[in-house]
Amino acid sequence: MWADLEPVGRDRRTGGYRRFAWTAEDAELRAWFTDQARRRGLDVTGDRAGNLWAWWGDPDAAADAGRPGVVLGSHLDSVPDGGAFDGPLGVLSAFAALDRLRSDGWTPDRPVAVACFADEEGARFGVACAGSRVLTGALHPDRARGLTDADGTTWAQAAAAHGVDVAALGRDEQALRRVGVFVELHVEQGRHLADLDDAPVGVAGAIWPHGRWRFDLPGRADHAGTTRLADRDDPMLRLAAAVTTARAAAERHAALATVARVRVEPNGVNAIPSAVTAWLDARGPDADAVRRVVADVASAAGAGPVEESWTPPTTFPVRLRDELAAVVGRTHGDGRPAPVLATGAGHDAGILAAAGVPAAMLFVRNPTGVSHSPAEHAEPQDCRAGVQALAAVLRHLAGDSHLVGDSHAAGQRGRPDDGGAR
Amino acid sequence: MWADLEPVGRDRRTGGYRRFAWTAEDAELRAWFTDQARRRGLDVTGDRAGNLWAWWGDPDAAADAGRPGVVLGSHLDSVPDGGAFDGPLGVLSAFAALDRLRSDGWTPDRPVAVACFADEEGARFGVACAGSRVLTGALHPDRARGLTDADGTTWAQAAAAHGVDVAALGRDEQALRRVGVFVELHVEQGRHLADLDDAPVGVAGAIWPHGRWRFDLPGRADHAGTTRLADRDDPMLRLAAAVTTARAAAERHAALATVARVRVEPNGVNAIPSAVTAWLDARGPDADAVRRVVADVASAAGAGPVEESWTPPTTFPVRLRDELAAVVGRTHGDGRPAPVLATGAGHDAGILAAAGVPAAMLFVRNPTGVSHSPAEHAEPQDCRAGVQALAAVLRHLAGDSHLVGDSHAAGQRGRPDDGGAR
Repeated sequence: MWADLEPVGRDRRTGGYRRFAWTAEDAELRAWFTDQARRRGLDVTGDRAGNLWAWWGDPDAAADAGRPGVVLGSHLDSVPDGGAFDGPLGVLSAFAALDRLRSDGWTPDRPVAVACFADEEGARFGVACAGSRVLTGALHPDRARGLTDADGTTWAQAAAAHGVDVAALGRDEQALRRVGVFVELHVEQGRHLADLDDAPVGVAGAIWPHGRWRFDLPGRADHAGTTRLADRDDPMLRLAAAVTTARAAAERHAALATVARVRVEPNGVNAIPSAVTAWLDARGPDADAVRRVVADVASAAGAGPVEESWTPPTTFPVRLRDELAAVVGRTHGDGRPAPVLATGAGHDAGILAAAGVPAAMLFVRNPTGVSHSPAEHAEPQDCRAGVQALAAVLRHLAGDSHLVGDSHAAGQRGRPDDGGAR
Repeated sequence: MWADLEPVGRDRRTGGYRRFAWTAEDAELRAWFTDQARRRGLDVTGDRAGNLWAWWGDPDAAADAGRPGVVLGSHLDSVPDGGAFDGPLGVLSAFAALDRLRSDGWTPDRPVAVACFADEEGARFGVACAGSRVLTGALHPDRARGLTDADGTTWAQAAAAHGVDVAALGRDEQALRRVGVFVELHVEQGRHLADLDDAPVGVAGAIWPHGRWRFDLPGRADHAGTTRLADRDDPMLRLAAAVTTARAAAERHAALATVARVRVEPNGVNAIPSAVTAWLDARGPDADAVRRVVADVASAAGAGPVEESWTPPTTFPVRLRDELAAVVGRTHGDGRPAPVLATGAGHDAGILAAAGVPAAMLFVRNPTGVSHSPAEHAEPQDCRAGVQALAAVLRHLAGDSHLVGDSHAAGQRGRPDDGGAR
């Protein structure tokens, strides 16, 4: 399966991937997903948010009978110059886990699906996990429709061109009630597992609160060769202060803060900029730490912040998490429970969990911890361990004995934040 | 004449101009120049560098007779979001000065021309004064042909599409020998005149040495939400150090330094950049001060510098300068010589002077000193004073009594630097 995907959206210069939502590359990836599902006899269906589901069994009848399905999956889109694993590893591993159990002659006791979430990275339209957010109602359909890319194309125009019924966009009760539990396998985006002994696969504990803030740094355009230093109002100096302060504040508050995207107007060598726009990505173990970082940067930059997204902390259901840690632990090593990791990255599984859908994540060891980069990597034997773990989880959750969707449902399924970072 | 030019290449959002070399806007401006020249019965001719000349009289016969012509002019292209005056004021004032003298029944004693230099700003291809540099041989034709814009189009492709014979590109001896003296009128790009009493027009003394340096700041792409601060190699921190140091070093060395153009890869909100490229524009009263600034920035940034251009100090011929200051002084105020100003900005007149062509500049007062910006301005009465001064200069230089091209020629006409900033 890897060989099919390897060339799609790959930039020859950087070796990284550019697979942005609702592009030709994305269409090719979604067609690949549909083809893989059909080869396995699965029924491919969409939802009111542009996501794809490949079902084995009748999920509506099962939901009616109080036995909603087990869904595995992830996403196929990428950040600019992203790696090969972030997203695709979860989708491929889901198909591979299903294949493995079927080749053993196993049949599930409830419907099983592989899901492919739309526009998870938010690389083109700025809101991450757009597919899962619209699905759960965390992102209002009007806001989703109106998101624009750098060329002024709206999310609605782009998605409609790929066959999505954007007039019907919104929270999809029917699609959600089919999901008894969702498990997303993902390459780890850090070195927690790599720093442990013999831990190829871990289980997600919590997702840190995170957000994106925009700073519109004002200035006055002027000639770089003739304007006295004292007469200048150069917004690049504010940018420098914002960058430096973001790092210092993150250290001070034990959080993470990054200025990784800037826009300079007019961006000419000898033209003092009229304006600089900077985006801050900030995350931390608790919301207070993040808010303190943002306030420090705003103070240093003398502008903003404009909050573009905010996602409160997400804790995956504890019983489900511990159950999966035990199941995964039995598939390798000495049988002790798999490690439980917190992460600063957002995921579709986190969006579902925040909306009250029982959800969990498995992480596959990443030897360098690098992600969102062509250097992102997981060793083949660790990928195999991931498939083995996911198969064991599927067998456990979709087996007759398991009361999925009942024991783990965290009460009412709410409509949480309207955020967008990840 | 202003009314014809006002809408060409104007950005409705910013109010600034985007008139880049060898674009549709540039073609419109060059067609306007040709039309204005023909209305006045001038002969429009090109040269081996893409510049336009509108001659009154036979410049070759006059050059043969040891009486080369008097040329006024400037350029019509702009920086991104530039103002209306930088360039066009010099071309329009040249036509207006000619009109004024002709309406008085004046005829020159030697040929007179209005020149329109190509690609003065270097906004598209990165090398300023490309037209005058190729004309004098300061820019090698192979290098000029190979310059590329952001889309990968070469200068040769772009210029050829506008009718330039790029195979013949290079120093043009015939065009140069026609020029006894060149006088460029320009809006002042600072507040020297505005800070004086009653000085609407000044004369250029020297152009500071100036250059452009590129800093390729390395880094490692990584996920902004998961990578520990200690594990990061974030080139944005190097950019911040470069920006802060450029300002501090400029203050320390009494120079000017600006980081106004940056490129961030991949420029995604949650992707620690793999690389940042920053360009430094530095100028100063002497080359040593500029070199010290560049070294300080390189040390702070931990990279570079790659010199993209370097222009040594240019002094306009002193006798010519003092003569014009006296002529201009008699056209307004108390008759004292017009003030002589040094400037940090490069100009075509400076390129010609550096190549040994007698050249001078007049500056028209700019009330705010702002330039390379939509806020660039000159009051109508100061523009009229500029035309009056330029007409007096033309009458002086092209009159029978004046030994232009002989007394001011600074010896052999050399081939100086191969630089590119301005």
